[in-house]
Amino acid sequence: MPLDLSGALQRLRDGRSTSLELMRESLAAARSDACQQVFVREFFDTALASAEAADLLRRSGLPGSPLQGLAISVKDLFDVAGQPTTGGSASLLDAPIAAADAACVARLRQAGAAFIGHSNLSEFAFSGVGINPHHGTPLNPVTRALDGKTRIPGGSTSGGAVSVACGAAWAALGSDTGGSIRIPAALQGLVGFKNTARLTPNEGCMPLSTSLDTSCAVTRSVRDAALLHELLSGQVLPPAGRPLARWRLGVVRELMQDALEPAVARAFERALQRLRAAGAQIEELSLAPLQELPALQAQGGLPAAESWAWHRQRLLTREAAYDPRVALRIKRGATISAADYIDLLQARRRWIAAMQAALQGVDTLLSPTVPMTAPELAPLLTSDDAFFATNTLLLRNTSVVNLLDGCALSLPCHEAGELPVGLMLWNSALRDADLLAIAAQIEPLVSPSIGGH
Amino acid sequence: MPLDLSGALQRLRDGRSTSLELMRESLAAARSDACQQVFVREFFDTALASAEAADLLRRSGLPGSPLQGLAISVKDLFDVAGQPTTGGSASLLDAPIAAADAACVARLRQAGAAFIGHSNLSEFAFSGVGINPHHGTPLNPVTRALDGKTRIPGGSTSGGAVSVACGAAWAALGSDTGGSIRIPAALQGLVGFKNTARLTPNEGCMPLSTSLDTSCAVTRSVRDAALLHELLSGQVLPPAGRPLARWRLGVVRELMQDALEPAVARAFERALQRLRAAGAQIEELSLAPLQELPALQAQGGLPAAESWAWHRQRLLTREAAYDPRVALRIKRGATISAADYIDLLQARRRWIAAMQAALQGVDTLLSPTVPMTAPELAPLLTSDDAFFATNTLLLRNTSVVNLLDGCALSLPCHEAGELPVGLMLWNSALRDADLLAIAAQIEPLVSPSIGGH
Repeated sequence: MPLDLSGALQRLRDGRSTSLELMRESLAAARSDACQQVFVREFFDTALASAEAADLLRRSGLPGSPLQGLAISVKDLFDVAGQPTTGGSASLLDAPIAAADAACVARLRQAGAAFIGHSNLSEFAFSGVGINPHHGTPLNPVTRALDGKTRIPGGSTSGGAVSVACGAAWAALGSDTGGSIRIPAALQGLVGFKNTARLTPNEGCMPLSTSLDTSCAVTRSVRDAALLHELLSGQVLPPAGRPLARWRLGVVRELMQDALEPAVARAFERALQRLRAAGAQIEELSLAPLQELPALQAQGGLPAAESWAWHRQRLLTREAAYDPRVALRIKRGATISAADYIDLLQARRRWIAAMQAALQGVDTLLSPTVPMTAPELAPLLTSDDAFFATNTLLLRNTSVVNLLDGCALSLPCHEAGELPVGLMLWNSALRDADLLAIAAQIEPLVSPSIGGH
Repeated sequence: MPLDLSGALQRLRDGRSTSLELMRESLAAARSDACQQVFVREFFDTALASAEAADLLRRSGLPGSPLQGLAISVKDLFDVAGQPTTGGSASLLDAPIAAADAACVARLRQAGAAFIGHSNLSEFAFSGVGINPHHGTPLNPVTRALDGKTRIPGGSTSGGAVSVACGAAWAALGSDTGGSIRIPAALQGLVGFKNTARLTPNEGCMPLSTSLDTSCAVTRSVRDAALLHELLSGQVLPPAGRPLARWRLGVVRELMQDALEPAVARAFERALQRLRAAGAQIEELSLAPLQELPALQAQGGLPAAESWAWHRQRLLTREAAYDPRVALRIKRGATISAADYIDLLQARRRWIAAMQAALQGVDTLLSPTVPMTAPELAPLLTSDDAFFATNTLLLRNTSVVNLLDGCALSLPCHEAGELPVGLMLWNSALRDADLLAIAAQIEPLVSPSIGGH
């Protein structure tokens, strides 16, 4: 396994490294070509000071903090005290300085995180592609090394995921409203865990869709995902309960495996074979309620209604400073009535109940995180049609879990030398601990040796 | 104290009466002149059978149920298995037969309630007046006996309250969205307890405003309110903790005492004097957030948006069968956008937080439940202006508690021979147990000998 956050923390405990050394490596990566357009605001100086302080404390024999002054990136949606928060948008370049940390930022700071910068994103977290016309688009560092092509990073936590993939950060604090943590994780061979939304606080994080937004993180390994989740949720995970063969795993017949790119289909089937070879019980399930998804997503659904409510005043005067593709989607919410919205909330509650009934007894579902490997960037910059078609496909599987109010983890299931493919474990609300436990058992069976830094 | 439900249950335990005898008295009252227009559907036969069954069980030495087959009325919003639910509306006269009891009906049936009938109400629970053009308006039985005038019962639980006031039922299951339990209780000298909404289930109850609706009951005494609340919430109340002098009581400077009818002002001040004489500490508080109420109630607020969502399909084809005054108010919701509604929900959350901060440390507030005694019916039948002005005033104080997501209890504070006046105890969410405990201590100090049956 390449060095992950948990491994780095072990090195510090063993005295094989210092926080300052590790921070210097992170900063070198952050300044490298691979990290271009990753940060919209750099906090390199304070990050260095945090690392030095962690070393000082450790040398004094004081109990170290959980994160020991190691580098963590923060999506430019979360308030960081003393910095503006701009959502990656030119429309907010005059945003006020935040007086206080967002709740999740505060929890990580309390745990000893050294924040290295505000990371780039799809404007206001809209889109799974990761293009940002204001700050430029962070490039997928994993695929560039493989085939020399310029591919999308995935979004919306585009810069956050690249910061982790290229070694500038050990983990990236981000958000997931329709797949924004899991999509870039899948396209870059990382781990993305979207917990049940209510388990982590959204205070101080710019909303996209208040019914669906989840504060969570991109990491390099499942154990790092569990560590970040414990810090963000303020809860301690229970010890893993059962061997792999005793969990009930399911593969969904409907939707989730439609129109897979051959490379994704191959990697997914190979992962299932390896799990079965290791004794896993995987059954095929029918989830009829998935057929009702189009009705729940009509008119742009909850994100359109809720983002319009948040943006409508600003759009009146500043629409020209928005990414037109983002403004277009927000403005769909203008025609949604209160009654339509109320009906939609109720339809969602009924749909969640139907899904939960269908998932009774299942410990996790297995699906491809996204149906494709990272597409090339250039055509998506020039063609709106290509952009919207790709975006819809990128979000298709992941957004099911947000509507479900559930939890999901994407982990890599490609081979070294292949373009990254994500395997998504997912389930209903509050199955987070089991999902993380199963993912930890699955990871060594299906994940490649991650590129790392 | 006149006979209340708790007293009647004691008589049964002591063998001084039988359930059948008490049910015959209830049915005689239900058939009397005072109870005209109180029931839209009578369940007299099954109520009689339930009472007989309770006697049989008790005579066999089996443990009796909490309600011992005594008469309870059910507002025509709650499903009763085998009966239609029509919301007091001609537009629903062809409503289907309910296959199952509403959750609150099921809890009371499980507890041995004998349901005597579906009680009349303001159509779809809209309005605090209690007028119903389809079934006629139940008349206020207390005030008729006092001055011979025909006065409103208060609403929307109009028939439910009259069923209790005239002796046809020991308690009335109803709902409170803006005051619908407390207003008729206040105008008829009864006790109305609106618990924190989340403590009692609304399943199987026709919604008015899903954000504000509360299932609760009208009773003759505070101890009966506590009993009904235990049955409806499925929770046991803790024993009362402190003497009256140790609670922190507050009187609100803003809004709640504006434009009081002299009789109400006199009764309210007299109640405060009696409480102080008994050692109560009552301080005057400023609740600045009350000034923001108009913004939260603009365009009809949450009830307009949420009732329009529920009624809009039916209004398309059946508006002629609606009370025009109700249809008018529901239709205000048609112009509310999703964004307006989302903003309103958020403004309400902020307002609740501000109110809770202002109420920190206060055990209960004391206010007049409604600023007037029961007005005469006739002018309100003929004048829309008079109707809407009266309705606004009736709901003014009580609706504050629904917006607050709080709890409130109205108990009588007039003297025998005076028109009924309600004293409202109220506070933020989940202070229900303390509120009931304080009300039980206050009741003997301020309440008259209730008219009873």
